[in-house]
Amino acid sequence: MPLKYILLLFLFAGFGVMQTNAQSKEKENSYFLKNDAVPYVGAQVFIEPGQTDADIDKWFSVLKENHFTFCRIRMFESYMRDENYNWDFSLFDKAFAAADKYGIKIYATLFPYTEKTDIGGFKFPRSEKHFHEIAVYIENLVSHFKQYKSLAGWVLINEPGTGGSIPQNEFLEQKIKEWKAENPPKDFAENGYPVLVDLNNEAFLLDYNTWFLNWISEEIKKYDNKHDLHVNNHAIFSNLAEYDFPAWRKFLTSLGGSAHPSWHFSYFTRQKFSVAMSANCEIISSGAGELPWIITELQGGNNTYSGGNPICPTKEEIAQWLWIIYGSGSKGTIFWSLNPRSSGIEAGEWALLNFQDEPSDRMTTAGNIAEILQKNSELFQKAKKLESNISILYVHESLWAESEMVKYGSNYEARNRGGVIKSALGYFEAFSEMGITPNLKSLEEFDFSKNDYSGETIILSHQLAFPKKYVGSLEHFVANGGKLIVDGLTAFFDQDMHNTMKTGFDLENLLGGNVSEFKMVDTIFTLETSGYQLPAHLWKGFVVEKNGTPVFDDSKAKIGLRNSFGKGEVLWVPSLPGLGSRIENNYSELQKLLANETAQSLQQIPVQFEKPVKNVLMKTLVAGDAFITVLVNKDKNRQEVLLKFQNKKLLPEILYSTTSAKAEGKNVILEPEETKVIVWR
Amino acid sequence: MPLKYILLLFLFAGFGVMQTNAQSKEKENSYFLKNDAVPYVGAQVFIEPGQTDADIDKWFSVLKENHFTFCRIRMFESYMRDENYNWDFSLFDKAFAAADKYGIKIYATLFPYTEKTDIGGFKFPRSEKHFHEIAVYIENLVSHFKQYKSLAGWVLINEPGTGGSIPQNEFLEQKIKEWKAENPPKDFAENGYPVLVDLNNEAFLLDYNTWFLNWISEEIKKYDNKHDLHVNNHAIFSNLAEYDFPAWRKFLTSLGGSAHPSWHFSYFTRQKFSVAMSANCEIISSGAGELPWIITELQGGNNTYSGGNPICPTKEEIAQWLWIIYGSGSKGTIFWSLNPRSSGIEAGEWALLNFQDEPSDRMTTAGNIAEILQKNSELFQKAKKLESNISILYVHESLWAESEMVKYGSNYEARNRGGVIKSALGYFEAFSEMGITPNLKSLEEFDFSKNDYSGETIILSHQLAFPKKYVGSLEHFVANGGKLIVDGLTAFFDQDMHNTMKTGFDLENLLGGNVSEFKMVDTIFTLETSGYQLPAHLWKGFVVEKNGTPVFDDSKAKIGLRNSFGKGEVLWVPSLPGLGSRIENNYSELQKLLANETAQSLQQIPVQFEKPVKNVLMKTLVAGDAFITVLVNKDKNRQEVLLKFQNKKLLPEILYSTTSAKAEGKNVILEPEETKVIVWR
Amino acid sequence: MPLKYILLLFLFAGFGVMQTNAQSKEKENSYFLKNDAVPYVGAQVFIEPGQTDADIDKWFSVLKENHFTFCRIRMFESYMRDENYNWDFSLFDKAFAAADKYGIKIYATLFPYTEKTDIGGFKFPRSEKHFHEIAVYIENLVSHFKQYKSLAGWVLINEPGTGGSIPQNEFLEQKIKEWKAENPPKDFAENGYPVLVDLNNEAFLLDYNTWFLNWISEEIKKYDNKHDLHVNNHAIFSNLAEYDFPAWRKFLTSLGGSAHPSWHFSYFTRQKFSVAMSANCEIISSGAGELPWIITELQGGNNTYSGGNPICPTKEEIAQWLWIIYGSGSKGTIFWSLNPRSSGIEAGEWALLNFQDEPSDRMTTAGNIAEILQKNSELFQKAKKLESNISILYVHESLWAESEMVKYGSNYEARNRGGVIKSALGYFEAFSEMGITPNLKSLEEFDFSKNDYSGETIILSHQLAFPKKYVGSLEHFVANGGKLIVDGLTAFFDQDMHNTMKTGFDLENLLGGNVSEFKMVDTIFTLETSGYQLPAHLWKGFVVEKNGTPVFDDSKAKIGLRNSFGKGEVLWVPSLPGLGSRIENNYSELQKLLANETAQSLQQIPVQFEKPVKNVLMKTLVAGDAFITVLVNKDKNRQEVLLKFQNKKLLPEILYSTTSAKAEGKNVILEPEETKVIVWR
Repeated sequence: MPLKYILLLFLFAGFGVMQTNAQSKEKENSYFLKNDAVPYVGAQVFIEPGQTDADIDKWFSVLKENHFTFCRIRMFESYMRDENYNWDFSLFDKAFAAADKYGIKIYATLFPYTEKTDIGGFKFPRSEKHFHEIAVYIENLVSHFKQYKSLAGWVLINEPGTGGSIPQNEFLEQKIKEWKAENPPKDFAENGYPVLVDLNNEAFLLDYNTWFLNWISEEIKKYDNKHDLHVNNHAIFSNLAEYDFPAWRKFLTSLGGSAHPSWHFSYFTRQKFSVAMSANCEIISSGAGELPWIITELQGGNNTYSGGNPICPTKEEIAQWLWIIYGSGSKGTIFWSLNPRSSGIEAGEWALLNFQDEPSDRMTTAGNIAEILQKNSELFQKAKKLESNISILYVHESLWAESEMVKYGSNYEARNRGGVIKSALGYFEAFSEMGITPNLKSLEEFDFSKNDYSGETIILSHQLAFPKKYVGSLEHFVANGGKLIVDGLTAFFDQDMHNTMKTGFDLENLLGGNVSEFKMVDTIFTLETSGYQLPAHLWKGFVVEKNGTPVFDDSKAKIGLRNSFGKGEVLWVPSLPGLGSRIENNYSELQKLLANETAQSLQQIPVQFEKPVKNVLMKTLVAGDAFITVLVNKDKNRQEVLLKFQNKKLLPEILYSTTSAKAEGKNVILEPEETKVIVWR
Repeated sequence: MPLKYILLLFLFAGFGVMQTNAQSKEKENSYFLKNDAVPYVGAQVFIEPGQTDADIDKWFSVLKENHFTFCRIRMFESYMRDENYNWDFSLFDKAFAAADKYGIKIYATLFPYTEKTDIGGFKFPRSEKHFHEIAVYIENLVSHFKQYKSLAGWVLINEPGTGGSIPQNEFLEQKIKEWKAENPPKDFAENGYPVLVDLNNEAFLLDYNTWFLNWISEEIKKYDNKHDLHVNNHAIFSNLAEYDFPAWRKFLTSLGGSAHPSWHFSYFTRQKFSVAMSANCEIISSGAGELPWIITELQGGNNTYSGGNPICPTKEEIAQWLWIIYGSGSKGTIFWSLNPRSSGIEAGEWALLNFQDEPSDRMTTAGNIAEILQKNSELFQKAKKLESNISILYVHESLWAESEMVKYGSNYEARNRGGVIKSALGYFEAFSEMGITPNLKSLEEFDFSKNDYSGETIILSHQLAFPKKYVGSLEHFVANGGKLIVDGLTAFFDQDMHNTMKTGFDLENLLGGNVSEFKMVDTIFTLETSGYQLPAHLWKGFVVEKNGTPVFDDSKAKIGLRNSFGKGEVLWVPSLPGLGSRIENNYSELQKLLANETAQSLQQIPVQFEKPVKNVLMKTLVAGDAFITVLVNKDKNRQEVLLKFQNKKLLPEILYSTTSAKAEGKNVILEPEETKVIVWR
Repeated sequence: MPLKYILLLFLFAGFGVMQTNAQSKEKENSYFLKNDAVPYVGAQVFIEPGQTDADIDKWFSVLKENHFTFCRIRMFESYMRDENYNWDFSLFDKAFAAADKYGIKIYATLFPYTEKTDIGGFKFPRSEKHFHEIAVYIENLVSHFKQYKSLAGWVLINEPGTGGSIPQNEFLEQKIKEWKAENPPKDFAENGYPVLVDLNNEAFLLDYNTWFLNWISEEIKKYDNKHDLHVNNHAIFSNLAEYDFPAWRKFLTSLGGSAHPSWHFSYFTRQKFSVAMSANCEIISSGAGELPWIITELQGGNNTYSGGNPICPTKEEIAQWLWIIYGSGSKGTIFWSLNPRSSGIEAGEWALLNFQDEPSDRMTTAGNIAEILQKNSELFQKAKKLESNISILYVHESLWAESEMVKYGSNYEARNRGGVIKSALGYFEAFSEMGITPNLKSLEEFDFSKNDYSGETIILSHQLAFPKKYVGSLEHFVANGGKLIVDGLTAFFDQDMHNTMKTGFDLENLLGGNVSEFKMVDTIFTLETSGYQLPAHLWKGFVVEKNGTPVFDDSKAKIGLRNSFGKGEVLWVPSLPGLGSRIENNYSELQKLLANETAQSLQQIPVQFEKPVKNVLMKTLVAGDAFITVLVNKDKNRQEVLLKFQNKKLLPEILYSTTSAKAEGKNVILEPEETKVIVWR
């Protein structure tokens, strides 16, 4: 396609238009990865010049020997053509041929030409010329490799998340100009107040990411519409505000994520990496909606110089992470990587194989699990994650607001980046120790279209900014039987960054009143109320009731409200017990409160812990009448877990255990670091 | 005025000329705020679009109900005109009308057009065009609002302090060029030594600030010469080297300061915020000279995202701060703020009112104190701060020198910014626990014109650079009976940043010798001398005597000098016991030394503590024959304070107490956090 | 010389050509400093405008009185000419005349015109014009001062080390272009793998430094080829990768170093400054080869605002450092400085004299030592450092690789700058406590040309990148009887930054196998093997044997290899016990291992400790049949050291002691901070 035509297309194709095109696309059913697939284990085969034919053959054979059925390959444009655009695909042809030979499926990652030190790949074209070059690359790449039987699909781009910074270049200036034409900045909001801080950069980035990924998918489909289209989101806990997953579902056939503890779990200690993996999976799972999803990158080996927090996963951690991933409903896991890179900041790192191309204990562990999945293929084909009916919602605008507000920083977690999501994670971790996996959804992903929400719970924990347009949805949820729990500075701002408690509190009817004052108290203080001694962080909120009933603390101050609203109920405590409990690493009081406040949801969950167990988590899959429970013990001591079933007649069969333990009935013994997978029938 | 004319004026009006103009102005006596006024309590009413007429009326009525008689309003140019310079003052007219209605006086703060995210306002015009626009704004603003009965005066600019950085723009390039024409940089000093580091940037900034404030005042007076002219200096402990208060007295009618613990007291722990407030007041009080002064901004409420060290003041702190302010001789306090801003980094913060516009416990406390001041109006009209005759002097050049020298930084406080002023504060804090408030003055503010200084003490603590032109003044002070105490690296440099101990020690005659060596020892070491065990910081100085008498440490090293000079005496210890005691938070040994060395001053102070009381301070006002003592206990325990009066026959009346305590005579019991105000007659 | 000609010379004189020129230069024997000189003590006399004739005379007289025979003077171009290039040398003439008068020898440091705040001097010409100006300065300076009898030589430039950053300017762009023409960057290495990270900047800097110093030396020799040519390298532990000492030997007549603890020993605590000085000396000594060497700058006095870690040396430290320097074979020490600078960031600092120009206790101590050296001139003329036959090698490419790889940093020392050299220093420190001084050499400095290495040991500790071209040399060493000990991630990379364990392990034959995996374990973990409990840092390496014999840890994992290779033997443990022991500050286990593994070398060392003594070090000189041992005790307690002599009949004579101790035979008692120098005959 001539450059001129591309540019014309670009100039007249604003954000809305592109999305409309995407919406009109019909989803086909012929894609490789389906919801009824047997979950697979795979690994990145890192292909680069210097490798021998024997090397490449060896890697695919070792995959097969270890029950790995899938791989991912980075399709470096820089190793496919010279400066004069003479294309030579031979290096990668060898890999595809070997995959054909050993029956390994491939996700091919687009990796257009970039700086040789750019280990993650660019996210923004640098110019219209560059934009055109990407299209040329896609045409050549896709046309050539779509022929291979081993090809399962395309990864549109590696890790689209940017960390929030938008580079300055002519291409982006034009994109921003277009976006602003559709989303004009405001000096004053509808309520008449001035808009002094806005969330336009963040909102642009969200739309831009969707637009760019959609554009790539459209380019691919010009040449190939038979293979999967996938993308992997990394550093989910800090980048999640950049992703509009519901919009992506329109052009993807599956969703994925990179989940490298050494890079992406900086909000967690190593002991908490398991629950971090669980939370990561839930975010991707929710983002995927009805699409299948996988963990597209999982750390396979040691770090020397890369990784913000370097580790070498133990074989026990590999088992924990894999089973948590599958226990979350994933259809696959691809390790990064099978073999190490030869050069650069990651040279010699990350690999499942040792330097002699022999499987490490990590790979052997993963291979065993792959074999179990395959041997129990019928069971896992129909297994789906157990729905808890409890949803912790995160709000894009809250994360955006935080990034605008934390400029002065401090020693207080709630005043630094991460406070908003850590507060939500506090509730997630509390439930995890109760043997329950709540949903972790963005506001947009929650289904507000139903007529009955009895038994369902939504938690909004310190979601700093709440957009006015969702107030009605939230009221609809509660009015129709839902339970809403709200803490922290939730809705302190609206979408225009107005302090709603002062400029008009849209949630007043629903929450039953307004905040009277927030007062900074201390890093941790105790919120003594109704018999609970909740550790809380930084600010204590006081309320003034309207329709609601005040909740008093032990000094008779009004520190919360209960409000009956339609068929449902709200509990609102505008302090931060979620984040406070997380900082204290002690969820016992919060768990007591949650056990009472979410009782209606809990009683519908068929399997959970009788009482919380510190540092133990459980993930549950439903497969017809059977349950598959994945239990992981991260405590330094042996833990004893008593399971509670709503249906008491199920019998256990141990599918996987890292100890020699037998099935003990509902009383499960877990050694430190143990992962135990049990089928209950 | 046409732009051309302005520019001409500007180009030919150098720094000296401007100051000459200012000096020729006659001060009038018709201003609102006078030294015999009853001290008032007020608050910032934050006016911005979006607010209703009812909002505005409510705020002025709640001020009146709570005995607040004063307010301050930020006069946003951006809310007064459109892009075509059509002026619309109606939003602010409403506020002025409401103030008229409820009898509230207004200080109107000039706030010319700036970026919407600029919460403090600019300090430097960006261009000559911008400079002209400011003049146009002043003309329109002042001409319109001078009509209101409620108008008390104009705040020239919000917080002129810059933190030391001078932006680069054409306007400033021109100003710097002019300044250099009058203050040509030197490659070599008079003593022939090269000048490798100079203080020209700092000296320029001092003069620039004076010039700019004077220019604003002249502009206002073109249209209104009947109302007060005021300015509020913030972050006094880090910005104080930028202010030439004696020069400002020529165009101001009162001086003020912003004193927000969460922004401005970073050199202090929260427990020390009371003594910080006392020191802040003393600096402003000294700067004001014969002018009345106020605290123009005092933190009224909670911080969420603003404030370097976020807090929510307790009602006890509000009482402590207010009484310390009035006990320092202030004629008023204006809280920041009555109502919260709706947007921006400070949205929902700082307010005395809650989100329902009801008074917080902080406001009720302040209102009670306002009422007490009003009920005792005669007493407070004549009350003046008690002169201690002890002056801790800070030297602009010392603070400037420090900012040039700390480039390598370190873990040692004396090698980081703040060392110079913290060392002086060490002495201030030591005296405070003795029930005494020393003066905290810049060198220029001290009256060196008198003929008799018997009973007076000057302390120079670690004043790193001492300008040659003041050596004579200091000699005059001691020769005429004064006592001089010098510690630290005082006069290590002269005004040209020459190491005077080597290039010619101008203070040799006065101090009685010279330094032999400084030796780095440790963060804290003990200076054992004459029975004292003084904690000292970092460097130990050794002396060589000329006229003076050596002071020996316990290992017979000469670590100081005593020198009789005329009718007075000098004690010089070139180590850092002031800063050392402050770092150790233990002033007991330093207080023993001060009790002996300043005995002549102390015996003239009519009321003080019998012995130092840890974490307790006292401020004293004199009102005719009566004394008003403000006592604050910041210790975690109840403290018992025995007062020592030179005149023993005074009887106490408790004016204010946060406990139910009665008057106990000279033995005052203070509960933790208590503020007690007693009138002794 | 006209500018044009200079530029032509420059453009056609690439790196190789210049070095060829240098190589062809014949070394003459008429230079001042010779290997058979009596070691001297000297000091920098800091000459600057403002000083009086009396000042200057006094300083040279005080040098003489204190047995100092040498000085160094910074020859400021800025104080020698005006803007019109009128030269006036009178200020410096006074100093040279005074030196003539008192018989003091001078090293004159070239200091071309630079910013007045530039305390260290520039390292890179800024333009071709600037380059020409330097040549003009050299011509004028050298032509004038070469006449003085007191002139001993020229210091080419002050401290050529740059810290690794190369400024951007036209001159350097041209130099880099030339260098790249001779060293073309590679996209792919010979092994076919891509080169993603290269060491070109670092390699350029190494060559550039050599080129620039050589150019200065050639310029000087145009006007004077009778005086010494010297250069002083500072911050050796961080800058050592920039220096190609063997190449410098071709144009220098002596080598030197600046060794200021407050600036340069940041990898050491103050207690370890003695061993740091020892290591600093060994690096310079090795760099010098057959040339004499000195410590060109040694901290003489207090820091106020300069120095990253400010100190004032005690007189005990002065004695320790001086004797360690002479005990390393140095021919001189020049203190920085005699007198303090008057201005700038170092004003009033660093001096041996106090502010009254009287000798401090530090100078008196140094003068005493100078006197002892002179009184024992015959002994010290023939004294040479004792060769231990143990060489710890550092590899330029390893240090370069580290600086490229540590971009993400972390809390782990091995992942930050300094890890490579600290690991090597761990072995140096372990041997030091055994009474032994190993060589500390760059790979290039080791003599690989011999035919027999029996009794010799090489240690490669965590030398991250090992250039292929030296594999043969290392094999030659072991094959001919040498013992090789290798730890850490040595040879993880080759010169092209390929991970050799994967891309072809060149050292496989020599080490007996390859690494299987590295695994990150913890900051410190215990490597339990063969009865040793070695503290190790961060990564644990596992091996796979080929020719070698595995070394097992207590859990039977292969954590090292022993390999017989020709007549020699290798021990390879690819974990980090060197750095681990250093972090733990506990060398006892490592010393046990070294005693066994280096037994063949140890038994040839004529004097050492019977067993390691914590915090004590010994340096030994050989003077004919006599030994001079320098013992320093940095322990807080008195230490008793039992010496082991291969020849038992030597009798001690105490040459220097800071206590009144007598000679006790082989059992030496050392008080805390004591330095004891004993001659054994």
